[in-house]
This record gives sequence, C-alpha cells and structure tokens, in this order.
Amino acid sequence: MPEQVRISLDAMGGDHAPDMVVAGAEIALKRLPHLKFLMYGDQARIKPLLDNCPELAAVTEIRHATQEVTMDDKPSVALRQRRDSSMRLAINAVKEGDAQGVVSAGNTGALMAMAKFVLKTLPGIDRPAIATYMPTQRGETIMLDLGANIECNEDNLVQFALLGEVFARVLYGIEKPSVGLLNVGIEELKGNESVKKAASILREIDLPIQFAGFVEGDDLAKGTVDVIVTDGFTGNVALKTAEGTARLLVHFLRETFRSSFWAKIGYLLARRSLQRFRERMDPRRYNGAMLLGLNGIAVKSHGGTDALGFSNAIGVCHDLIANRLNETIKAEIASFEAEMSKAEAKNPDNVPEDTAQ
Amino acid sequence: MPEQVRISLDAMGGDHAPDMVVAGAEIALKRLPHLKFLMYGDQARIKPLLDNCPELAAVTEIRHATQEVTMDDKPSVALRQRRDSSMRLAINAVKEGDAQGVVSAGNTGALMAMAKFVLKTLPGIDRPAIATYMPTQRGETIMLDLGANIECNEDNLVQFALLGEVFARVLYGIEKPSVGLLNVGIEELKGNESVKKAASILREIDLPIQFAGFVEGDDLAKGTVDVIVTDGFTGNVALKTAEGTARLLVHFLRETFRSSFWAKIGYLLARRSLQRFRERMDPRRYNGAMLLGLNGIAVKSHGGTDALGFSNAIGVCHDLIANRLNETIKAEIASFEAEMSKAEAKNPDNVPEDTAQ
Repeated sequence: MPEQVRISLDAMGGDHAPDMVVAGAEIALKRLPHLKFLMYGDQARIKPLLDNCPELAAVTEIRHATQEVTMDDKPSVALRQRRDSSMRLAINAVKEGDAQGVVSAGNTGALMAMAKFVLKTLPGIDRPAIATYMPTQRGETIMLDLGANIECNEDNLVQFALLGEVFARVLYGIEKPSVGLLNVGIEELKGNESVKKAASILREIDLPIQFAGFVEGDDLAKGTVDVIVTDGFTGNVALKTAEGTARLLVHFLRETFRSSFWAKIGYLLARRSLQRFRERMDPRRYNGAMLLGLNGIAVKSHGGTDALGFSNAIGVCHDLIANRLNETIKAEIASFEAEMSKAEAKNPDNVPEDTAQ
Repeated sequence: MPEQVRISLDAMGGDHAPDMVVAGAEIALKRLPHLKFLMYGDQARIKPLLDNCPELAAVTEIRHATQEVTMDDKPSVALRQRRDSSMRLAINAVKEGDAQGVVSAGNTGALMAMAKFVLKTLPGIDRPAIATYMPTQRGETIMLDLGANIECNEDNLVQFALLGEVFARVLYGIEKPSVGLLNVGIEELKGNESVKKAASILREIDLPIQFAGFVEGDDLAKGTVDVIVTDGFTGNVALKTAEGTARLLVHFLRETFRSSFWAKIGYLLARRSLQRFRERMDPRRYNGAMLLGLNGIAVKSHGGTDALGFSNAIGVCHDLIANRLNETIKAEIASFEAEMSKAEAKNPDNVPEDTAQ
C-alpha cells in the first residue's frame, strides 16, 4: 500500500469554491484512496458539504480561516493583509509539515507571493517558476515559466531548464527529457541576450540534461521537445494564445456542424468520435500548474475549473509528492553547481556566461 | 477606372519560385486588371513561364538579376553581398519610383534589412515592424511586430500602435480601430517596463487612436481589439503558437474522422461544410505580412506559399498602395508629434514617459 499523503486545500479559492473543492477532493480520493486532506476556509460553508461525503469527511480535517484572498487582491496586499486567509494557512501547513503539498484555485499572483514568502526557494534556485503541460502531436510538453517572472536573465532560464527537466522525469517518467529554449528562430544568432546566454550555458555545461537548442512557437503544439523554457512574459502570452486559438477552432467547428442539414447529420454520426476529440482537448485534463523551485509542493488549479479539473490538480500534487520531486531537484542543482565550478576552474577565461557575448 | 499600379516582384524568393510568383501574378491580374509588374530574377527561367501567360506577359517587364538571396543568408551578408539579387533590385525599383510597392516570398530577415537600408523609415518612425492579420471570432485582428525587433522600448511600441492603427483603417476601412497592448494581464500594474510606459503614453496623449489598454494572449483569437501591439519576440512566438495550435487541432480532427466507420460516414456528409471550415482557416488567405513604417510599400509573402497565397500578398500590396497607406501614416505621425509637444509644454513635470515610473 502506498504511503499516506496529506494535501492541504485552499477551500475558498476559485470561482466555484468551496463546492468545487470538496467535490474535487471526493473524486481524487476515489482514485487515490490513501489521500488525506486539510481543508482551510469557512467552516460553516465547508462542513455541510463534507457531511454529504462521509468517505471524504473521514480523511479530511477542516481548519477554519477567517479571511479569503480575492481575485482582485494584489500579491503585495495579499501577503501583508491576508495572513489568516484560507490560502495562506494552507501554505503554512506545508511549511509546518502538517501537509506535504498544497493546492489552490485562487489568485495566482497572491499564491506565488505567499508560497515564495512562506516556503522559500530551494537552494540554488533564485526564483520559482510556474509550469504546466499541454497536449501536442506526440504526447505532452511541459512549458515554464508561465508568468511568475516577467523579466528573466540567463541564470533564471537555466534554472527553469533544470526544474522543467526534473519535472518531466518525475511526473512523466521520461528517462532523458529533451529541453528547448523558446526563441524566434532556431539559429544560434537569433533572440534576446538572456536566451542566447542561457543557450550557451546549457550547451557548455556537462549535465544529464538533453538540451535540444532553440525551439519556436509552433514547436509547442508539435511536441518537438519534452520541456520548453521561456520567460514568464512570453510563456504567459504563448499559453493563452494556444488556449484562445483552440477555443476559436472549436467555435468555428461548431458553426460548421450547424451550417447545413447534412453537416448536422454528419455530426450526429461522428458524435462519439467528436466526443473523444473534445475530451482530448479538454482543458480540465491539463489543469494544475506547478509552482516549481519552492521548498515545498504547491499546485495552482485554474480559477474557473470544476470538480473534475480540481481533482486533476490534486492528482498532480499527489504525484509530485509521491515521486519526491524536490529531492530530485535538489540533487540536480547540486550536480549543476559542481559542473559550473568545474567548468570555471578548467577554463577560467571561458566561463559559459561569456561565450555568447 | 482605377489608377495604374505597378508592383515589383522578387521572382526568385520562396520555396516554389519563380513558378509560384508568375502563377500568383496571373491570378492577381485577373482580380485587379489595372496591375502592372516588374519581375526581377533569372530571365532564362522567368521568360518561358511568362510565355505561357500572354495577358500577364503584356503587363510585365522582366528585369534580369544575377544573384539570389537564399533562405540561409544572414541579413548582414545579404545586405553586403547580394546587391544584384532579385530581392534587392525589386526593392530598389520602389526607391527609384519604378514601382509603387514590392512583394517578396524570400528570406524575411534579409528583406527587412534591405528594405530598411534602401527605403529608410518614415519620418518619426525609428524602426519598421512586421504586421499581419489573423482570423478571430469577430473578423480579423492585426498584430505587430512579428519579429523585426526583438527588444522594443516604449517609443517603438507607441509607434507600432500608430502604424497598426493606420493599417487597420486603410486596409479594412475601420473608422476608429481599437488598439491593445499585449501583456500578461489587463491590470495597469502588470507587465514589463516598456509595455507599462507605452500604455501610459497612449493613455495620456490625445490622439484619434482608440486605445483599449492591455490585452492578453487569448484576445488574439477572440478579436477583442482590431490591432494588437507587441515586441517582435513575443509577437513572433504568439503568431507561431497560434499557427501551431491550429494545425494541431486540424490534425486531431483528421484522426477523429478516421477513427470509426460512423465518423467516416459523418465526415462524408459534412464534407462541404468542413471544406468551408478549412477555407476559413486557410493560411493562404492570411498570406502577406507588411513591413510597416518604411518609406515605401513592402509586403512579405510566406516562403512556402503557392500561387494563390502569393496572389493574396500582391493583393495586399495593391490595397496599401491604392489607399495611400504611407501618406496616412505620415499625417498621423505629425499629429502625434504635435500632441507630444503640446503635452510636454502644458505639463513639463509630467511628460507621459515618466508617469509609469
């Protein structure tokens, strides 16, 4: 029997909280019966919901929170003025060892700020990154950062590459995940300074990372590499562009099937297959953005998700805990730092940072 | 009868040149019988193609070029070493007044470098931008820059806003196009410094531009605004991400219709409607990226396009010439500079550049 895993939930985060959080935990528990939960939030609202789910209630402890983080709270305000919020207390639980990971569907900026403040980053990681996985022509691709860091230097990007690589190994069991840097072309000379310097470091340093060089926007959907690394500005725009384009095509497709009698009949005949197409694209399958690089496991669920989507975010949190993501990241960072020192000692005039200048 | 318009064509640029160029010009001529062409390239290859199109031959002058720009030529190399190339001579023709616009499906970087060197930018424009239009839920949206400028400051972005706005007015006849700045959120505090400062300038300055504030990646497909302004790095990634996602969905959809007997029958019944869906998404419809801000009209066709796509790029070039794009840009820039001086004179302590600091 697998080890027990206890996850703390921000029961008040998300458009449909707390109902969706409780219902999501119930679904997750059916899949992963060894889960236990701490639910932070308004006891008066959570308790009646739990009373309807006796199996979930048996493994869940409600901890009352007097505050909530709203979607409009600025991260700095949330940090200072929401110390008794469900989100903050759920994160504190990880810090205090009461839970091994936290899931919230609340305000992303606030979650990132609080998680960074409370949990701190792992040794060797300057800034945490937000990562998610997306459907591609050949399976799934992980992309980071998705918006935690608007401007990134080469060291941030290299650290994201390490984080993403370990994530792909741990969550997908890919033995040697390939890592690409998002750029405007695949030639060495293209791109901004951070991207060029990061590529130069990743090429020079002898790490187990399989660095595939630069990739472009369309490589996201092609699935050219297992991990795509970019700054938070570009990553955020790319992710939302992909989501928007997918919705646009589905919209066009719906219009198409309504446009004539024969198209309607055709739709009815192909309905089962089209249902699988929809499931394949279902954003709930890809719900759960990871805050990587923190000294603790934290997963962000989409704010608008439903119970099924939230249960997937819980599943991701469980997998990262069960597969000891952070232990692997720590080992990787240590080996990276050793390689960097070796490279500098061997060739002091040609440390990787300078090669792209 | 409309005025005669003469367009110079880089007959050697593109994967299927020169055949596709000649065939594309033939299609364009059928639609726009007042067109005339200058075709630059290898006379021995162009002449036999033209001989098969007597109507096109009657309005086309072949001008022999001894060189070609290849897709691998770096812009700097193309600029120095391809002075007798079909691309360079076709651009020169615009400078010399022999043609009113140029179309090339060749190397984008080389085209931009040569066009900027030969034609120069319009007064008040520091850097030209590449713009294109994309299908959205409510018509089309123009996006720029798509890769000409990897790093942009606030002045570049403001100039792109002016260029894009005029483009939307001239090419689409939108009376008051709305302009949005691509960002990671719609709140004023979000984004990098250039984006925040550009927004501040666009908000403060009293221009006919309808500035809609920040937009996000998914607003591309939603068509929230008529013009989306961004730096060349983000724009390039966003455009390719959208293209890649669209291809991925079409790929999934194809698999869907092959996945069962009933799905195949359904496809056959809905075939006509699905054909219209495909046409709606056809990248050839959206072929023709504009090099905006140059003192001359230059259009870049996709390198892999066919005759139909190339004819659309010629059509875009024609429309920009016929609607006097650059005259309108010049007037807009002049009014912008007047407004900027007025703002500075009125309120010297609060010039827009500083408001975001």
